[in-house]
Amino acid sequence: MFTPQPIGYIRSPYTETSAIPKGLGAKHDAEGMLDILPQFQSGLKDVEGFSHLFVLWIFDRAEGFDLVGRPPVDDMPHGVFATRSPRRPNPIGLTVVELLHREGPQLHVRGVDMLDGTPILDIKPYMSSIPAEKLRRGWLADAETRKEGATRQIASGQ
Amino acid sequence: MFTPQPIGYIRSPYTETSAIPKGLGAKHDAEGMLDILPQFQSGLKDVEGFSHLFVLWIFDRAEGFDLVGRPPVDDMPHGVFATRSPRRPNPIGLTVVELLHREGPQLHVRGVDMLDGTPILDIKPYMSSIPAEKLRRGWLADAETRKEGATRQIASGQ
Repeated sequence: MFTPQPIGYIRSPYTETSAIPKGLGAKHDAEGMLDILPQFQSGLKDVEGFSHLFVLWIFDRAEGFDLVGRPPVDDMPHGVFATRSPRRPNPIGLTVVELLHREGPQLHVRGVDMLDGTPILDIKPYMSSIPAEKLRRGWLADAETRKEGATRQIASGQ
Repeated sequence: MFTPQPIGYIRSPYTETSAIPKGLGAKHDAEGMLDILPQFQSGLKDVEGFSHLFVLWIFDRAEGFDLVGRPPVDDMPHGVFATRSPRRPNPIGLTVVELLHREGPQLHVRGVDMLDGTPILDIKPYMSSIPAEKLRRGWLADAETRKEGATRQIASGQ
């Protein structure tokens, strides 16, 4: 095992969990910053060549975990490893951000869904995608279908 | 901070780092298993609905880190946060695998690039992709272009 250490902190417009967009179709286009500690700055060399980055971070304001829970986007319970719940055995978050520009140790990014001050564990380049047509999205797709059905029923007055 | 704990272990055909395909165009289609510990099995509920999963794991056989290094696919040095080097400040690996089928606590997957026995930290559903046409891939694309140029020179006898 290892002892996690922050390599920097997230600067985000969100100071409370309730402010982060959630639910089906939630957009994550908020801009923020990955503020890397000076002692790790040289590790950013050439990162600006990538349009997108994986950010690994700590759910530092979550405590404990639930193996099964109800995500905000669905009324059915799912296993924690089939959701993005913060209450995980290892409270590590993963977010894909778009890199807008770099100023020394600061990476300006779009797509933050973390709270302001969140500790960053790692940054990795996003090198390739699974094509959308090859993805199956389990309960998430089911929940979207149910929601669309409900919206149609409301629209048609049934 | 938190204390990382394994939720399970990777079963992989690779027992040595040198056996893992590396370099430009390396294919990661090896099959393996995510062998989840019994006490975390209920967290897998509904995971089988997803075609692809993110696996977070520990580079448990790496020691220390280099902020700048030369990846196997290029002859130029890059910052650790622009590469997938195992020698990172927080030695966490990230792999996208295709879920083939589930048998209780065991997830049979394609696309392992981890060593046999690697501790797993987390599993998350792969919910969406950045379209390939929106990706810029920095030094990796440059290295591919240089390699293609060298191959053309060799092919044309120059």
